[in-house]
Amino acid sequence: MNIVEIISKKKNGLSLTREELEFAFNGYLNGTVHDYQMSALLMAICIKGMNDTETFDLVDIFIKSGDVLDLSNIEGIKVDKHSTGGIGDKVTLIIGPIVASCGVIVPKMSGRGLGITGGTIDKLESIKGFKVSLTDDEFIKQISDIGFAVTGQTKNLCPLDKVIYALRDVTGTTDSIPLIASSIMSKKIAGGADKIFIDIKCGNGAMMKDMDSALKLKDVMERIGAFYNRETICEVSDMNTPLGSNIGNSLEVIEAMDVLKGKTGKLRKLCIKISSTMISKSKGVSYAEAEKEVLEVLESGKAYNKFLEFVKYQGGDISSLTVSKHKQEIKSQKEGVVDAISAQEIGKLSCVLGAGRESKEDTIDYTVGITLEKLVGDKVTFGDTLFTLYKKDDKDIEINVDDYYTIN
Amino acid sequence: MNIVEIISKKKNGLSLTREELEFAFNGYLNGTVHDYQMSALLMAICIKGMNDTETFDLVDIFIKSGDVLDLSNIEGIKVDKHSTGGIGDKVTLIIGPIVASCGVIVPKMSGRGLGITGGTIDKLESIKGFKVSLTDDEFIKQISDIGFAVTGQTKNLCPLDKVIYALRDVTGTTDSIPLIASSIMSKKIAGGADKIFIDIKCGNGAMMKDMDSALKLKDVMERIGAFYNRETICEVSDMNTPLGSNIGNSLEVIEAMDVLKGKTGKLRKLCIKISSTMISKSKGVSYAEAEKEVLEVLESGKAYNKFLEFVKYQGGDISSLTVSKHKQEIKSQKEGVVDAISAQEIGKLSCVLGAGRESKEDTIDYTVGITLEKLVGDKVTFGDTLFTLYKKDDKDIEINVDDYYTIN
Repeated sequence: MNIVEIISKKKNGLSLTREELEFAFNGYLNGTVHDYQMSALLMAICIKGMNDTETFDLVDIFIKSGDVLDLSNIEGIKVDKHSTGGIGDKVTLIIGPIVASCGVIVPKMSGRGLGITGGTIDKLESIKGFKVSLTDDEFIKQISDIGFAVTGQTKNLCPLDKVIYALRDVTGTTDSIPLIASSIMSKKIAGGADKIFIDIKCGNGAMMKDMDSALKLKDVMERIGAFYNRETICEVSDMNTPLGSNIGNSLEVIEAMDVLKGKTGKLRKLCIKISSTMISKSKGVSYAEAEKEVLEVLESGKAYNKFLEFVKYQGGDISSLTVSKHKQEIKSQKEGVVDAISAQEIGKLSCVLGAGRESKEDTIDYTVGITLEKLVGDKVTFGDTLFTLYKKDDKDIEINVDDYYTIN
Repeated sequence: MNIVEIISKKKNGLSLTREELEFAFNGYLNGTVHDYQMSALLMAICIKGMNDTETFDLVDIFIKSGDVLDLSNIEGIKVDKHSTGGIGDKVTLIIGPIVASCGVIVPKMSGRGLGITGGTIDKLESIKGFKVSLTDDEFIKQISDIGFAVTGQTKNLCPLDKVIYALRDVTGTTDSIPLIASSIMSKKIAGGADKIFIDIKCGNGAMMKDMDSALKLKDVMERIGAFYNRETICEVSDMNTPLGSNIGNSLEVIEAMDVLKGKTGKLRKLCIKISSTMISKSKGVSYAEAEKEVLEVLESGKAYNKFLEFVKYQGGDISSLTVSKHKQEIKSQKEGVVDAISAQEIGKLSCVLGAGRESKEDTIDYTVGITLEKLVGDKVTFGDTLFTLYKKDDKDIEINVDDYYTIN
């Protein structure tokens, strides 16, 4: 077999055999295929696509490149949750405690943020002492004990996906549905959960820009799940607008706690919907029954206490959460109703403030971010604060309000 | 500007601006753009194409990456000749002496062979003492003195094309018409000739497999030539069948001399056609007048003597030409007429014998190769020798005749 012939085959729109995919991808991991050859192949896959057989094969190659987590000794249904990534998406920090409070286990592996998309691991690191790298044993013990744990991807889980993901990131080959689906599903399957819930974000602040792509991704991921006998439930949710009011690491942990303590709004509604679906599918009860359980653990404070238990278990000191004192309020120069808030632009701004990474090596500032004081649908008059920046220092940042808020 | 955004733009089928092309390609040459990023961009270009403006811009970027040869001080019309590459293609060695004998200057820069395609430089190196790397001054002096010289690409001519070509070769991105056209035409324009003749090979042994692609390439190259005010004449010729009877380095030099000494056949006809076109376009005379001149220099021996003069001028000892003594005759097991001889398969076989390179680092054996004893249209009976192998040693090579010859 010859890598140039394999690349050419895909370039010409033909499908690759299991052996060819192994030759190329395993060859990349062990160094016989060069990065410049893999990136050419990834680009050809991006443009020409992959069929179901190729996609299932690639998932399997990713899984077999490393270890698989065995959660079968833990009693109860284990349900994993994943988001394809968005702005202000702190859903994991809310639904984990809710679902665990209802007796369903949530073993959660998370990543760091890159570009405008935040990562759960970064958010948790804003809590002093919080340990984000658990060993397999620690992870398994914690989910057995309290039903919920979050850890960074363990070293030996899908190492091939790790290097491919890094290469895609710097070669303009991220937005391929079969590649996205393979990357997510291989990690979820290797993670060992019985059921998988995936929140597909769709909109200007997400990788999937339109509903058509989001539904295609949903379809492929559900079929991969079925092929591997892991029930996979994908739901598409909006990411044209940031999720909730707070964007930035400490700020998002604070908002997650607020929602668990009773704060209402769109974010809470989404979390109730996701939790209820996860519980309904895991326990085999109706959605209405599951939703009733969810509302009970929220209203009783059980879910909030589970959050505190979880933070403490992983060594975090919740009282340490800090938000920068360097604030700047952005005022409205218009009167009307907020029609839209661009997730993409707010995401870029949070990166500029230092809450996100441009490249993997960048360090982030956990205390900076943005709070949206006015949300979509709110009435606004001249001089109202639309959003507040939490900055590294007191230097004023020039803001063109119209880039972020559409008021009509 | 950002390389990932440029790659993504092309992936999405958009055209790139002059500035974006410069950022990407010059960035690759100076190391700010990585090879894995350039190969992703090349693959996107391969699949999505480039429009005329992009192609003209890329040619200019290639040219400006290095030096340009100034031939304006040499009196007379300078016409360059290029072949897109084939099996048994020794045309340059025949038409150079013919055209120079007719008073038109042929300043020829050539490459080495790669894969099944031979290279003029390799063929000339089979002559002991032949110097294939001339300095600019030596090259200019020689064409002024005798009207014909062949040199390897000088170091500073289109250095960017050199590195891009090497990357394309190992990433399955060779067969892109705008990339092929840019690569060839930038070198031809930087080479300083007034007129450019390009022999586009088409068939199973060539990069252009079908007439449609060959004509598209012809069209783009002629338009690039016109844009740069260098008359460019492209003709498409067959490469389903090897050109002439001999394949292999010494063997091809010998056949070139045979044609110059009077050997008839398809190869001679093609060389007369190409020479006559080059002369007609250069001198502004009719094709018939040019052809008359060509036949005169062939029949008088003037062209053959020019070949000997050329070899001697570059230090070669023509009496040194050697062909391996280890022969193996491949006999026919059928009776009938030769319908086809696969250029591709003969090319692969010549590589196996050691006449070509699989990769750039391979060394080649000048004395090995193949002679076709029966050509297309010839009658064949049982036991007739179809072709002879000239091998490194006496070890028998297993040959399935039907892979090479179609006899009906």
